[in-house]
Amino acid sequence: MKSYRLVPGRGLAGLTLHDRDVPEPGRGQVVVRIRANSLGFRDLRVLSGEYPLPVTPGVVPGCEGVGEVVAVGADVTRVRPGDRVAATVFPRWLDGPFRREDAAQLGTMIDGVLTEYALLSEDGVVHLPEHLSYEEAAALPLAAVTAWNSLTSGGAPHAGMTVLTLGSGAVSLFVLLFAKLAGARVIVTTSGPAKAERLRALGADEVINYRENPVWWKEVHALTDGQGADRVVDATGPLEQSLRSVAAGGEVAFVGYWLSGAKGAAPVDPATLFAAGSVLRRIATGSRAHFLELNRAVEAHRLRPVIDRVFPFEQVPDALAYCGSGGGFGKVIISHA
Amino acid sequence: MKSYRLVPGRGLAGLTLHDRDVPEPGRGQVVVRIRANSLGFRDLRVLSGEYPLPVTPGVVPGCEGVGEVVAVGADVTRVRPGDRVAATVFPRWLDGPFRREDAAQLGTMIDGVLTEYALLSEDGVVHLPEHLSYEEAAALPLAAVTAWNSLTSGGAPHAGMTVLTLGSGAVSLFVLLFAKLAGARVIVTTSGPAKAERLRALGADEVINYRENPVWWKEVHALTDGQGADRVVDATGPLEQSLRSVAAGGEVAFVGYWLSGAKGAAPVDPATLFAAGSVLRRIATGSRAHFLELNRAVEAHRLRPVIDRVFPFEQVPDALAYCGSGGGFGKVIISHA
Amino acid sequence: MKSYRLVPGRGLAGLTLHDRDVPEPGRGQVVVRIRANSLGFRDLRVLSGEYPLPVTPGVVPGCEGVGEVVAVGADVTRVRPGDRVAATVFPRWLDGPFRREDAAQLGTMIDGVLTEYALLSEDGVVHLPEHLSYEEAAALPLAAVTAWNSLTSGGAPHAGMTVLTLGSGAVSLFVLLFAKLAGARVIVTTSGPAKAERLRALGADEVINYRENPVWWKEVHALTDGQGADRVVDATGPLEQSLRSVAAGGEVAFVGYWLSGAKGAAPVDPATLFAAGSVLRRIATGSRAHFLELNRAVEAHRLRPVIDRVFPFEQVPDALAYCGSGGGFGKVIISHA
Amino acid sequence: MKSYRLVPGRGLAGLTLHDRDVPEPGRGQVVVRIRANSLGFRDLRVLSGEYPLPVTPGVVPGCEGVGEVVAVGADVTRVRPGDRVAATVFPRWLDGPFRREDAAQLGTMIDGVLTEYALLSEDGVVHLPEHLSYEEAAALPLAAVTAWNSLTSGGAPHAGMTVLTLGSGAVSLFVLLFAKLAGARVIVTTSGPAKAERLRALGADEVINYRENPVWWKEVHALTDGQGADRVVDATGPLEQSLRSVAAGGEVAFVGYWLSGAKGAAPVDPATLFAAGSVLRRIATGSRAHFLELNRAVEAHRLRPVIDRVFPFEQVPDALAYCGSGGGFGKVIISHA
Repeated sequence: MKSYRLVPGRGLAGLTLHDRDVPEPGRGQVVVRIRANSLGFRDLRVLSGEYPLPVTPGVVPGCEGVGEVVAVGADVTRVRPGDRVAATVFPRWLDGPFRREDAAQLGTMIDGVLTEYALLSEDGVVHLPEHLSYEEAAALPLAAVTAWNSLTSGGAPHAGMTVLTLGSGAVSLFVLLFAKLAGARVIVTTSGPAKAERLRALGADEVINYRENPVWWKEVHALTDGQGADRVVDATGPLEQSLRSVAAGGEVAFVGYWLSGAKGAAPVDPATLFAAGSVLRRIATGSRAHFLELNRAVEAHRLRPVIDRVFPFEQVPDALAYCGSGGGFGKVIISHA
Repeated sequence: MKSYRLVPGRGLAGLTLHDRDVPEPGRGQVVVRIRANSLGFRDLRVLSGEYPLPVTPGVVPGCEGVGEVVAVGADVTRVRPGDRVAATVFPRWLDGPFRREDAAQLGTMIDGVLTEYALLSEDGVVHLPEHLSYEEAAALPLAAVTAWNSLTSGGAPHAGMTVLTLGSGAVSLFVLLFAKLAGARVIVTTSGPAKAERLRALGADEVINYRENPVWWKEVHALTDGQGADRVVDATGPLEQSLRSVAAGGEVAFVGYWLSGAKGAAPVDPATLFAAGSVLRRIATGSRAHFLELNRAVEAHRLRPVIDRVFPFEQVPDALAYCGSGGGFGKVIISHA
Repeated sequence: MKSYRLVPGRGLAGLTLHDRDVPEPGRGQVVVRIRANSLGFRDLRVLSGEYPLPVTPGVVPGCEGVGEVVAVGADVTRVRPGDRVAATVFPRWLDGPFRREDAAQLGTMIDGVLTEYALLSEDGVVHLPEHLSYEEAAALPLAAVTAWNSLTSGGAPHAGMTVLTLGSGAVSLFVLLFAKLAGARVIVTTSGPAKAERLRALGADEVINYRENPVWWKEVHALTDGQGADRVVDATGPLEQSLRSVAAGGEVAFVGYWLSGAKGAAPVDPATLFAAGSVLRRIATGSRAHFLELNRAVEAHRLRPVIDRVFPFEQVPDALAYCGSGGGFGKVIISHA
Repeated sequence: MKSYRLVPGRGLAGLTLHDRDVPEPGRGQVVVRIRANSLGFRDLRVLSGEYPLPVTPGVVPGCEGVGEVVAVGADVTRVRPGDRVAATVFPRWLDGPFRREDAAQLGTMIDGVLTEYALLSEDGVVHLPEHLSYEEAAALPLAAVTAWNSLTSGGAPHAGMTVLTLGSGAVSLFVLLFAKLAGARVIVTTSGPAKAERLRALGADEVINYRENPVWWKEVHALTDGQGADRVVDATGPLEQSLRSVAAGGEVAFVGYWLSGAKGAAPVDPATLFAAGSVLRRIATGSRAHFLELNRAVEAHRLRPVIDRVFPFEQVPDALAYCGSGGGFGKVIISHA
């Protein structure tokens, strides 16, 4: 079977395809025939050597993969051969808050899922919503889990609350979809009219063009009777504007500074943090429990993730290059036809 | 101006209409010209003397009333003359958990709102959603606040959760409406096909006929892959069946045994409470904060309460008799034309 | 090596000692040389066939055991040979709320720890507080975890709150100790002056003799300015009195009706549940996360569990008979000398 | 009666003593004969014009005052003449999260308590712990309420958690005292051995000299097995070091940048906010509910605030000058002998 491997710090040149034996499951493990993956900025950072966490040289990259269980080891009770599953990004983070001892992450510290067959723990897979194809479900493990964690860790938003989400990246699109399911009014920032139109079609109540309104937090106040947004999910930065956008008693879910590079990395004045009068919650993906919860919402509402383009498994480098060009709308998917 | 007064324990005969002077607002008070009220079982219990809390003889009855601010006292900042407002049932319960020292309740311990002009504290009124008529808004203060508290005090339900609500009483109808806004799947119990049809029209995903299925908790399990409902709002009893219906780790919001008389009053085996594996939360109306929150949801979704019948102010006794007959669907409203 | 086995429903006669091979650890597993166990009412119920959950015939009994890791399987990262550990009662319940799919419990569904060597998953063991002997630490896995869960699942009690705990059973003693660490004022019920004295020595602020005060909830009100206790941990029943003892806005943690047999099983009037104005939270042992948290408290305060008597491993039947006689104060321990 | 008044922006020169009539209570109001006040940096900021919120010219300054109720207006039920009470800093913030509409603050927007008789709403006073003198109780309204809010808004800390608090300012000393009551292990930073000794005498488990260890967050990790502190209360800055000190999944309570001037105002790199893996909660004093809760803890443990110096009412300017010199340990108190 074929697997990608990577040497961090060398970009796409560090990514190579290898032949391996199909793994055998140990006790508590499952082998999944991977049917689809998705890719994104995180993978580019891992390749470029800019990822803030350790990357094992020669590791199989990829933290987003779905497929079919083809073999199970001893004592496995959660799944059976034939089940359609997704791998969870942090196989040991099952529920509750993140613990350092459970920090092993697919595709960086431990082997990931850009492979034809993946060896995973049974705790590290969840069943797929029935109505989704493998290509659609491959969009969930990173972006949807992060979005769900962002919206619910401070308590699910109440119907009628205002949620602000930044940009039309993969996390932000799931925040939009999930916040609409929860009855929130959703404001999204974006760069131009074409994306604005797509965002509205997905349910956005208000779209702010941040090029026309570079001080967009003022627009947020104008759209909320001067109160600000109850919840802000910031997956792009600049954090300073998110803090100015949030309502007193609200919450900013801070998804990660690296996603936006220089823009998000602008230093924050503590006075702004204080004046925000809110909670700033740092979000890093999420747990198996988050994934189970969001799957119920996805299934109950027959939600479909937004897919940008699908590439075959052999063209992972092209797909990553496409991701790097930054122009799409929705997830970039790898299909193992 | 005219006001009803009541002598508890005498039923409708204890209710009489009197002339009073229009009140003057003291510091921190407002005078509201009442434009609509609503009525329900609670009022019947107060009249019959069965209400479990003290009732002041001669008190003005009614805890649900809306109208227009016509005068404000010194230091009032929350409202202005001309504002459309609702009275809150517990004028001193502003936020946080209920405290005994804030137990004064309109229409029992202190004068209520079955009157042409009510003297209220400014903390004890909230603005009305703009799209609602007075008659519609009069449905909110008791039933909608109770429903909101029931659904949110253990945390707002997540999209995709299953909510079970019992019957088509006023609280249960608001639970249905609010749970749908939050993206939940909603199961409702009811007595027959006509109500079932109306419940489905309001968004119910599943309706269980409890006459055909007297052991309806088994139906709940059948509809939820054997898991039970994540949230149960029990405003009618029997509590035993609610406890058998709830999922492990779920919550039963127990709205009040008296609403259902004998049925809800069946004693509960502690083994059932234990086996439920859930939290049982006792709910009693709600705070000003609950009312403010639900108004945002009502306004954002332009939700309209379900109205059964409207009676003029002079026919409050007829309206109460109608309530006592128990046959309607939605709130019984009093209009001060 | 020697292991007990049990046939449920036959009492002590169903318990027999067998020779087995020392197990080999599979992937993710550890072998623990058991050094101490503890026993209690739960074990008696399992033997008598009255336990409310399924018991596998021939299972190794015992859910409370501590010892030394002597071998680890592949991929084990949480512990190393030589580590002093306790088994967790629910090896798959790591954090967050209880899930039915993680219901496997030591000593009932799956093999427990009344054995010389136990085969456990690495997720199912936690390190012991350093200052405790094996005999002391053996008191923790069931009673201390249950007590910690009871006190913290509704949020840790604030310093200055009043906690009521019923009786001087093992769970109640840990509730007393943990609540005192948290700065609470603690009221305990007990049967006579000798136990009362020991409870006071452990820090109890108030002791109520429930024989002299069979309607002891009135005493609770007398001791709390008529407010009731903010938190009640009910491990014995009768639940009715717990509900009458709790303050408005408080919480009753209901540990399990079977511990008290007939007394706790008295049916509860829903009116009492409603009048309590509180949350009733059902507690069933707790998760690995609970165990980790309580170990930090035990270690920081160099807390020592209360030990009643220590029996050698060969005398488990005598130790169980002693438990059944019900007269002790503190945990009954098995030592593997 | 005498009252101070202030003109903001002029420092001590803006503070003058005036004669006024003793006020009469309106409906819902009380008149309190002030017996003691306390002062601090906040008052200096108000005088200097650096306070970040609006200050009404001519306002009576002071937000911390205690005394005896001497008159009550109509409808007052919470207190009676003769009761010993403290004013709450935000008289309209009763419970739940802070709301902008309840932002009126004693001594800035509305008249404060550096006066012989204060006119207050009954909602804006709480009873004093019985064992405290007026001088001792005057330490509570700002510093103790802020400390309590800081420690409990993210949930009361569990026994055994590690709490880090910065410096020996008034808020930090209450954090130390309250965290010890809750069973936490407490680390405090300070500037030298004399203060370190006093902090240890108050219960500090570890004291870090930040002059000797300017990169003190490394010390915090050394003292916590590399985990960091579960809770950090930052009332001085630099926030960057607090963020580096907190454990994954922990919380930084950020009390206010202005208290420390330049030091706390150093901008924060979003990468540090992200790497902290924790919640950052902005704290601004607290509600009436916080005050009621802490009073229970203070009373149950007969806690006594740390008093630095006591000045007579006529020497408020000297007391403020003393505050400005920055050298004390504990609260600066004004006594109305």
